[in-house]
Amino acid sequence: MLGAEALLRTLASSGVTTCFANPGTSEMHLVAALDAVPSMRPVLTLAEGVASGAADGWARVTGRPAATLLHLGPGLSNALSNLHNAKRAQSPVVNIVGDHASYHRASDAPLTSDIAGLAFTVSAWVGCVAGADDMSRAAGAAVRAAMGPPGAIATLIVPADAAWGATTQPVESVAPSAPRAPNAHRVEAVRRALASGASAVLLIGGAAMRGSAVRDASRAANAAKARLFSTTFTAVAERGAGRVLVNRLPYFPEQVVEALAGTRYLVLAGASVPVAFFAYPGLPGALVPEGCEVLTLAEPEEDVAAALGALAAALGAPENGATMTPHAPPPLPTGRLDPSSFAQALGALLPEGAIVSDEAVTTRFPALAATVGSASHDWLCLTGGSLGLGMPMALGAALAAPGRPVITLEADGSAMYAPQALWSFAREGANVTTLVLKNRRYRILEVELERLQLTDARRGRELLNLSAPEVDFVALARSMGVPGVRATTAEEVVVAMRRAFSENGPSVVEVVLEG
Amino acid sequence: MLGAEALLRTLASSGVTTCFANPGTSEMHLVAALDAVPSMRPVLTLAEGVASGAADGWARVTGRPAATLLHLGPGLSNALSNLHNAKRAQSPVVNIVGDHASYHRASDAPLTSDIAGLAFTVSAWVGCVAGADDMSRAAGAAVRAAMGPPGAIATLIVPADAAWGATTQPVESVAPSAPRAPNAHRVEAVRRALASGASAVLLIGGAAMRGSAVRDASRAANAAKARLFSTTFTAVAERGAGRVLVNRLPYFPEQVVEALAGTRYLVLAGASVPVAFFAYPGLPGALVPEGCEVLTLAEPEEDVAAALGALAAALGAPENGATMTPHAPPPLPTGRLDPSSFAQALGALLPEGAIVSDEAVTTRFPALAATVGSASHDWLCLTGGSLGLGMPMALGAALAAPGRPVITLEADGSAMYAPQALWSFAREGANVTTLVLKNRRYRILEVELERLQLTDARRGRELLNLSAPEVDFVALARSMGVPGVRATTAEEVVVAMRRAFSENGPSVVEVVLEG
Repeated sequence: MLGAEALLRTLASSGVTTCFANPGTSEMHLVAALDAVPSMRPVLTLAEGVASGAADGWARVTGRPAATLLHLGPGLSNALSNLHNAKRAQSPVVNIVGDHASYHRASDAPLTSDIAGLAFTVSAWVGCVAGADDMSRAAGAAVRAAMGPPGAIATLIVPADAAWGATTQPVESVAPSAPRAPNAHRVEAVRRALASGASAVLLIGGAAMRGSAVRDASRAANAAKARLFSTTFTAVAERGAGRVLVNRLPYFPEQVVEALAGTRYLVLAGASVPVAFFAYPGLPGALVPEGCEVLTLAEPEEDVAAALGALAAALGAPENGATMTPHAPPPLPTGRLDPSSFAQALGALLPEGAIVSDEAVTTRFPALAATVGSASHDWLCLTGGSLGLGMPMALGAALAAPGRPVITLEADGSAMYAPQALWSFAREGANVTTLVLKNRRYRILEVELERLQLTDARRGRELLNLSAPEVDFVALARSMGVPGVRATTAEEVVVAMRRAFSENGPSVVEVVLEG
Repeated sequence: MLGAEALLRTLASSGVTTCFANPGTSEMHLVAALDAVPSMRPVLTLAEGVASGAADGWARVTGRPAATLLHLGPGLSNALSNLHNAKRAQSPVVNIVGDHASYHRASDAPLTSDIAGLAFTVSAWVGCVAGADDMSRAAGAAVRAAMGPPGAIATLIVPADAAWGATTQPVESVAPSAPRAPNAHRVEAVRRALASGASAVLLIGGAAMRGSAVRDASRAANAAKARLFSTTFTAVAERGAGRVLVNRLPYFPEQVVEALAGTRYLVLAGASVPVAFFAYPGLPGALVPEGCEVLTLAEPEEDVAAALGALAAALGAPENGATMTPHAPPPLPTGRLDPSSFAQALGALLPEGAIVSDEAVTTRFPALAATVGSASHDWLCLTGGSLGLGMPMALGAALAAPGRPVITLEADGSAMYAPQALWSFAREGANVTTLVLKNRRYRILEVELERLQLTDARRGRELLNLSAPEVDFVALARSMGVPGVRATTAEEVVVAMRRAFSENGPSVVEVVLEG
């Protein structure tokens, strides 16, 4: 078989069966090999950031990697900002980056660039295939690196001649590795700290946010009378009625300082030490209170779920000792459409089993608050702060969970970094409702100007203004085959969201916020 | 003053007076400093690839750098693919990349990444400001590096605390450096080779494509009975009636081999050795004929125009010995709208002084052929093969030359990498007509499948299909405030182009190609 086929077979037999692709000339043999590997599903995207963001969404929903197929250094470049988000989410992703034929690299042809140098900025593993006979081994190594644990970005550079060359090497198949068993000494150290009666916070994130892990975290915190928080931006959070109730650390550093004040022990499970998202003049960047001891329950490569289970048991927590969320959706809003009434509508209407892809920036705060008691759902955050993830991540989530409704919360500013995802929604019939929260400005940056006492800036403020021209998101959606409607009152947004959530397939609601 | 103001003052006093920006929190002091430096014009873009592509367009038209303003690693990541094109065009560009406050980097906040690592992949110069007192020096060094010669990418990383800190250091002002005088020995070696009577080709590119340089290249070639070619993808080519006639090397390697067959001396002036854009199984990647000696007339840092002038003089070329292009536009087409009739319409209607931003991929070949005898114009190519340049480059060109009509030739595939440029066209009232050549597929990749004898690929071919859904470029343009029309016949495209070329401001013509 050709190297190209060996690559696809290795991926597919290792469970990597979806490939978000934007191929070019150097990838034509890989594209042609799809006929020989029908279990590999290619998903065309019109821009590479859509491919990498979709792979992130796929990974968050399934726990398994998807592949991207990218065209040399420029294709990888365009994928990097969402790979940054995926890296911060510990999402497993396998990037396949086509390159010039190995013997052609020295020619410095126009598309030649430092692919490995680009890849290293986001990848835990970077490899270059040495030839067709090396293809399956290299692809297997990439999958293994991506699967971790923890999940990571692996980037495989595939010279065109490795794809078009023939090989008789056997095709590898890679199985996921189990995480390392938790370290009993760490668990005991944490138990002792929590049992001391001193003020303690259990901070969870990553793999600790799901299933038994989050339940055991709540049981352990309750048994020890410790406070439980999640990180501010979680890759996936299980929320809503019947799920474990977890408060979230706030965004701004002074708020985090207040939330953690007086804490003697800060226990990390799947989370890192909290730090300010940005530094501000005169505000701290590190947010752990003075005199607070930080204890790590499990390292990233360890089984944090097992560690939390052991901790809850060691603390004698009762089986049903987790704090569960009652079903208490807000009432439907009426009247003026603003972030608060929008959030209320979302909280009231969020369908059971929904997946929320959250890139709402300022509106995320009321949206999170209003959905605490909604029907059960999964909430996927922008983990790395790199805008342009919302719709791409929703694409991957929708294809990974075709039976579930996916809802994208988009700010009008952030929506414009990767609007091409709309086209893939239409092409794939993805069941994604995109709610574009249109305030006609980079509102978060206005907030930042206020925080920095720079509100006098006249010309600078014009750079935050998205009203001239206003983007018409209904027209934008229709231009790429997605039906859209506009809502300008709370009543209209309720009607629009009800319809969008009840119908299968993609749609856009332009939510025109007042003020 | 604050470091932020020192930065903007240094740029402005060095002639860098336009900044294509997509700022975030870490750049708020830079944004606020705009009021203190009114000579700096900020141009908001909704995605960073638009900013970097516009800076390239600005540089190609003016010969001077524009700045970009980007938000940390992810902002730079999104700008990289068009910076790759700018690098290949030897366009001077100064990237200003905001970073976390220096003391906050070690916190590994969510947006932290290896900015310098990213920057080095495209930049000739990368620097990080050491503090407010270092700001003007560092900015001056960046401008100096960008200006070359030759033009290059310089990336300055600006920690937030360097921007918000105060400084009393004087503001630097950087003047362009003159290129090094040509090397008389090289000129004499080339003269001797050309005068030998052996078959010779003079291959020009870069700075040799303009003004006296291209005229002297033609004079020298004619005097020596050598053949004159330009590189396949030129940063700027002066074309049309009354300009020097220069044939262009073809795209596919076998065509280049044919064009250069029998050449004994290949003389490079502002050009590199021709190589295949992509390697193909069984085809050569290096395209210089066996036994052909390659002579370089001037190194990139040398004055290639002076070298060509000296060469023409040494060969005794008459003053008026250049081959000029007669005015011979094609007649207006009628009937079926296909690449050939579209090209004919373009050739007939191209307005005097137009700037063409060419990202037409397959349609560029007939478009180039049909415009040889059109009114005089400048033609800007996609130099690095990284798609998404066409509209961004047109934005920069239009702002750099407000009195001239700018025309973007876009394929429907390539248009979708950076459609956000449309919004900046509307916001700035840029005089850009975007002609979207809609064939509903990645046609170039179909050609590549044919060349590689992979046309049986069934699933792979679906990845080249842009027809389900079709992008509606009229709706897309309107969604971002740009008027658009659709043309489906040669007559309609003539009417649409006539109107678009005669009116000021942005517009889009969706050119629906048959077949």
